[in-house]
Amino acid sequence: MCCTLSNQQRCHQCMFIVLHHMMRPLIVGLVARADLLNWLRHCHRLLYILCYMCILGLLFVLLDFSCSIRNVALFQLAIEKCSDKGCLSLSLLELLAFNMTFVFIASVLVLIEPVAAGSGIPEIKSYLNGVKIPGIVRLRTFLCKAAGVLFSVAGGLFVGKEGPMIHSGAIVGAGLPQFQSITFRKIKFDFPYFRSDRDKRDFVSAGAAAGVAAAFGAPIGGTLFSLEEGSSFWNQALTWKVLFCSMSATFTLNFFRSGINFSKWGSFQLPGLLNFGEFKCPDGDKNCHLWTAVDLAFFVLMGVVGGLLGALFNCMNKYLAKYRIRHIHPKAKFIRVLESLLVTMVTTIVIFAASMLGECRDLSTPTAHNTTLAGSEDINSTIRQFFCSNKTYNDMATLFFNPQEAAIHQLFHQDGTFSPVTLSVFFFLYFLLACWTYGVSVPSGLFVPSLLCGAAFGRLVANVLKVKLGMDIYSGTFALIGAAAFLGGVVRMTISLTVILIESTNEITYGLPIMITLMVAKWTGDFFNKGIYDIHIQLRGVPLLEWETEVEMDRLTASDIMETNLTYVYPHTRVQSLVSILRTTVYHAFPVVTENRQNERDFMKGNILISNNIHFKKSSVVSRAGEQRRRCQSMKSYPSSELRNVCDEQSAAVEPSEEGEDLLQQMLERRHAPYPNLYPDQSPSEEWTMEERFRPLTFHGLILRSQLVNLLIRGVCYAENQSSTNQPRLSYAEMTEDYPRYPDIHDLDLTLLSPRMIVDVTPYMNPCPYTVSPSARISQVFNLFRTMGLRHLPVVNAVGEIVGIITRHNLTHEFLVAKLRQHYITI
Amino acid sequence: MCCTLSNQQRCHQCMFIVLHHMMRPLIVGLVARADLLNWLRHCHRLLYILCYMCILGLLFVLLDFSCSIRNVALFQLAIEKCSDKGCLSLSLLELLAFNMTFVFIASVLVLIEPVAAGSGIPEIKSYLNGVKIPGIVRLRTFLCKAAGVLFSVAGGLFVGKEGPMIHSGAIVGAGLPQFQSITFRKIKFDFPYFRSDRDKRDFVSAGAAAGVAAAFGAPIGGTLFSLEEGSSFWNQALTWKVLFCSMSATFTLNFFRSGINFSKWGSFQLPGLLNFGEFKCPDGDKNCHLWTAVDLAFFVLMGVVGGLLGALFNCMNKYLAKYRIRHIHPKAKFIRVLESLLVTMVTTIVIFAASMLGECRDLSTPTAHNTTLAGSEDINSTIRQFFCSNKTYNDMATLFFNPQEAAIHQLFHQDGTFSPVTLSVFFFLYFLLACWTYGVSVPSGLFVPSLLCGAAFGRLVANVLKVKLGMDIYSGTFALIGAAAFLGGVVRMTISLTVILIESTNEITYGLPIMITLMVAKWTGDFFNKGIYDIHIQLRGVPLLEWETEVEMDRLTASDIMETNLTYVYPHTRVQSLVSILRTTVYHAFPVVTENRQNERDFMKGNILISNNIHFKKSSVVSRAGEQRRRCQSMKSYPSSELRNVCDEQSAAVEPSEEGEDLLQQMLERRHAPYPNLYPDQSPSEEWTMEERFRPLTFHGLILRSQLVNLLIRGVCYAENQSSTNQPRLSYAEMTEDYPRYPDIHDLDLTLLSPRMIVDVTPYMNPCPYTVSPSARISQVFNLFRTMGLRHLPVVNAVGEIVGIITRHNLTHEFLVAKLRQHYITI
Repeated sequence: MCCTLSNQQRCHQCMFIVLHHMMRPLIVGLVARADLLNWLRHCHRLLYILCYMCILGLLFVLLDFSCSIRNVALFQLAIEKCSDKGCLSLSLLELLAFNMTFVFIASVLVLIEPVAAGSGIPEIKSYLNGVKIPGIVRLRTFLCKAAGVLFSVAGGLFVGKEGPMIHSGAIVGAGLPQFQSITFRKIKFDFPYFRSDRDKRDFVSAGAAAGVAAAFGAPIGGTLFSLEEGSSFWNQALTWKVLFCSMSATFTLNFFRSGINFSKWGSFQLPGLLNFGEFKCPDGDKNCHLWTAVDLAFFVLMGVVGGLLGALFNCMNKYLAKYRIRHIHPKAKFIRVLESLLVTMVTTIVIFAASMLGECRDLSTPTAHNTTLAGSEDINSTIRQFFCSNKTYNDMATLFFNPQEAAIHQLFHQDGTFSPVTLSVFFFLYFLLACWTYGVSVPSGLFVPSLLCGAAFGRLVANVLKVKLGMDIYSGTFALIGAAAFLGGVVRMTISLTVILIESTNEITYGLPIMITLMVAKWTGDFFNKGIYDIHIQLRGVPLLEWETEVEMDRLTASDIMETNLTYVYPHTRVQSLVSILRTTVYHAFPVVTENRQNERDFMKGNILISNNIHFKKSSVVSRAGEQRRRCQSMKSYPSSELRNVCDEQSAAVEPSEEGEDLLQQMLERRHAPYPNLYPDQSPSEEWTMEERFRPLTFHGLILRSQLVNLLIRGVCYAENQSSTNQPRLSYAEMTEDYPRYPDIHDLDLTLLSPRMIVDVTPYMNPCPYTVSPSARISQVFNLFRTMGLRHLPVVNAVGEIVGIITRHNLTHEFLVAKLRQHYITI
Repeated sequence: MCCTLSNQQRCHQCMFIVLHHMMRPLIVGLVARADLLNWLRHCHRLLYILCYMCILGLLFVLLDFSCSIRNVALFQLAIEKCSDKGCLSLSLLELLAFNMTFVFIASVLVLIEPVAAGSGIPEIKSYLNGVKIPGIVRLRTFLCKAAGVLFSVAGGLFVGKEGPMIHSGAIVGAGLPQFQSITFRKIKFDFPYFRSDRDKRDFVSAGAAAGVAAAFGAPIGGTLFSLEEGSSFWNQALTWKVLFCSMSATFTLNFFRSGINFSKWGSFQLPGLLNFGEFKCPDGDKNCHLWTAVDLAFFVLMGVVGGLLGALFNCMNKYLAKYRIRHIHPKAKFIRVLESLLVTMVTTIVIFAASMLGECRDLSTPTAHNTTLAGSEDINSTIRQFFCSNKTYNDMATLFFNPQEAAIHQLFHQDGTFSPVTLSVFFFLYFLLACWTYGVSVPSGLFVPSLLCGAAFGRLVANVLKVKLGMDIYSGTFALIGAAAFLGGVVRMTISLTVILIESTNEITYGLPIMITLMVAKWTGDFFNKGIYDIHIQLRGVPLLEWETEVEMDRLTASDIMETNLTYVYPHTRVQSLVSILRTTVYHAFPVVTENRQNERDFMKGNILISNNIHFKKSSVVSRAGEQRRRCQSMKSYPSSELRNVCDEQSAAVEPSEEGEDLLQQMLERRHAPYPNLYPDQSPSEEWTMEERFRPLTFHGLILRSQLVNLLIRGVCYAENQSSTNQPRLSYAEMTEDYPRYPDIHDLDLTLLSPRMIVDVTPYMNPCPYTVSPSARISQVFNLFRTMGLRHLPVVNAVGEIVGIITRHNLTHEFLVAKLRQHYITI
């Protein structure tokens, strides 16, 4: 009972701070919105507003950070007091209770929104790559993630907050410019801008960049992160805006931290949340070097070891993740909560027990050059004396009973040595626990644990070199390089990670060693497996597109990999056909085609013939069973269910062709006309013969499912006896009003629409999408698809007939490998 | 005669150092090549070798720097001594003589290779944009530029060496991986790699990045520079290699400078050649801030002023450049040398006269925090006492009689104040002289003069705020922001300049102010004119492609801007036709087409019909008169000169079409075959009627002029009575052997080739280039062209007929604006 009361008070105080800080930005945000809105009307399509958005988002992050740190620190103080008085078991129980409560809350938050689990970087990476995972940029995810990471870090788990911060930044980027949310469905603003996937993606990449920038104080690194993960082509204007956004985010955070933590409003003294402190030689020591050319050889070796350790970490985590998918996820949800509580319990007991084993080391005399933590706090203030007499400190407890950032600072800057045994034990325990923790259903980052783990390894190397071999080295540099090596071995990022680490150290001279270490670690790790984020993306089955294809793939051509079973629409189609096509397929885009007759003369006549063809793709795999069920039901509810038997035949009236100038005129027109043969006749049949299946189809454009649904909802069609010019016209705003959640065809009540009305899709389709020729090499197809950010790439032959379509699935590594194997077998 | 002798000795010594340092890298390079070559054979297509290349290049740069600095310093010491003894006029004459000698040498070097004049950044920018300017990446240019900039800087002109260094880096990148040179034609290595425009461009961008990295100690800035100027799509692998190359360049430079200047081999203490020193508050002063939120408002204002000054600078320089083009360039070459000598004379006299007007200021007591210049030299060592008593110094002379880098350091870090009058006079004189100097025919950079000019402006603002208004500010920050504002106003770079400046200060906290200042300066400046590099590119008439088109341009479609007069070839063409086409046009690529008959059945028969069509583009503008003359001559020398009258008619044998399965088979084949109608018959006629001119042509592929010439040289053709399978095949190596200088058609002796032989171009053409539809919007066309780095983009209509071709010229801003105006008129 030594200190429970004061603890409880502190806890209340802390919770109040948490709640207060979480509510304030919301209120500020709502007030600010009204002002912003007026301003926004004037500056259409100005990405800069994102900065202001991110500032709001970062307030959250900032406050959550300081709270959780304060939180953890509180308990540690309590335990330190307690250990003096000999009430260890009580302390342990107390610590366990608090940690498990916090983790329980974090876990429950993740149950509410399962996407909030983990670091969020795989999800953001997938999103920026072009794959939409449901729910990852929703407001609810943001709330669960932000609050969850607060509690999971406060709960003493070996998790970081950088990943969740990046995810949060991305959600703020995605959500705020839309001025709408499913969670707050009722609140509606009239803000019709940025209603497209492309704009949203730009905002998400800016938000993610701002997240990185704020987390590490690395605005350039953040920009490069979003380029590395998300960019397909170098868009200078966007890059500049993203950089500005990152810069603003970093300095807003800086402004508030300087103001709140040190009451120096208006100065910008503190870089990002995670900064590595200043690496500096003592002022008087002329022989001290941060690193020399000789050290580079050791750095390379450390890179190799870091890569190996990272590969081991990834391998273990992969098996664990597979086990979880197979044995834990199918069971009741509370099992997951139990798992996170188990991890918490083990973690708490381990750090408690390990601290007792720590060695007591002499405290070095504080020299003048002691670097400072977070601007003003002395590094020695984070030393723990548990079980040690005065003037000495417990090295294990110093590492375990500190916030992770403080432990990293200790390893980087503490002059006093850590014993090799302590470092080895710490590394080993941390490695195992961090590996177990990543994947538990709480929001959990991986950057800081990896850095800490690696720093211990690096410091161990420095200890051996300095004490055993007597070399004159700077221990902090080795700890930094160790951290870089292990982190590089785990995440396998290159450009952005290099720049982030350089910016975090604020020391350009570390550029070369960090870069070489990361490169070596990546090469070594890639020899065994992929980066941890890619592993988790793969486990989730996301069809991610790589940066480029392998040279070998160029043995294949577009015709080898394309999907040949097409579901298409005609320029003028009956409502009943459209509804049927939409209800029986899951495709997101349909080519608009006309039949290509043997005799070209027939095409030129301009007879308006309407057809309601349905080209069933019988072998199409409908992914979700539920969707199929709904589709069957909606088929029944539709007025005319004998859709596929309806025939509309109409004979073509042949006009005599004119001679001379008229013919020339006609030819000229035909060359430039986008639809030379728009209105073919066609008699659809129930059963397609082989010949019919492969009959030539001239390609005219692509139309999206959402567009077709929209046309149907708004009754855009004309009667059989009218001209298509009578069809109502929709504006761009009307077409995009429902973005990003267009209504589902199965939810629509179409009884008001006459099934025999005709829809002219030509004004709404994309008449000239990028296309490729069937003989195009894979690398060419891939570049076009990746660089232009396409979703559907029609394959059109030399005479303008569509022969297939290529989507993301046709370009994934697995698909290409399978096709290549097939190709070799046939040869 | 007071000090001439010692001066002469020093001069000899200096020249020896210059020569010695220029020769050594050459020898080192030649020795290193042999070793490298063996290694290179094993690592095909490994861009990393570039690092090693750049290391060589950077040795040059490094040495040239130290030499020129030493050089300038020498004279100043002499004059300082002299002024004490009252022999001013002699000192002036001496200084004039040396300066003019040096500038004369620089000027003569530029006469040898005129492309070596100026900063080289406009040339590199054009090259990376995709425009080849003859000679800019030649070895001779490199030698002239590197030696020239040494002498022009040593000659006391107000020029920087950063631009020429970037150009030199780019040449090293372009040249060395090729292992051949026109200058050393005799030396031949068997190194067949990297023989394509694309590889060469990658190497040039890496080289330019390495140049920036070494010049400013900014590896990340260098990488972003090459991305900003040259990249079209974000190629991660390339970016990583470029970053590695930049890093290596920076640290190699660092290694050698640490070793040579301070005998600390193995340590890496000195960042780039131009670094800004350490901005740091005095250790004890708790109230000192580098900048606060209040200062940001001043920074924005300074950005506006910087933008205005930059615009004025650019405007004046533009008129000067126009004057030079009109009145100086047409005259004899020595006039240019005279101009540069005149500039030198005026500059020398002005700095001499101005120094006499300087105020004597009290030397501040050297405090503990005096920042260091270049690692170990004290800032006070560059103070000049001319005409002043002890304990005071001449502020004007301190700025004028120092290397520019030292003057920048003085403005950034000198505690002692400069008088406002001195700063104003200095700024005014420097502004005018730098503006006059840029464009004189010596190698001359613009970065350092702009920085110095802007730093004076910034220091002036700081003086006013601090002394007159009594504000508590850090003068150095204002000088830095002034420098950024003026430089930003002149060059208008955004991303890369921000990062370069941040890295040069090695202080991440300056990120936001630098960025905001640059942004404001760019916006303000863009209101009046373009950046200085763009102005010079425009004056040279280079068709540069912007980053994106304006929204307004989307009123146009591909068919509005394409070139409709096509010169094309058939899949099987007679030698005489090919020669005629090649000799009468200047196009670099030709579409391969077949005639499209009205009746499609005819296409399917597979008759081998040969035609020798020449479709004259009568209105084609041949740009160079000389080329036209040569063409006429070569037409006459060709054996059969009645080319255009030859007719080869052959009637088509009609095969009866088969029914059923065979038809299906045929159809399937046709759908996937790349050339469904490859062999049409055709009777070319002397005079094309309108109808013939616009007859439909099915597009099959693109073939380059260089490829056609190559086929002719190597006799790739078959006789009329043979099958095309008898035609000899060329390997890839044979096709690219002559890269990058393919022989000209006019230089060939084709008498050995029978004009009636037939060339089958289909194995060598690009069968599936990217194409666009005639109705594609301009932004779409532009994106495809820019992003994929195309040179020729065929416009193909919905039925596979080519209707036009789009090249770089059709997409320049001027052309689009003209077309848009035309478009509005027709409506």
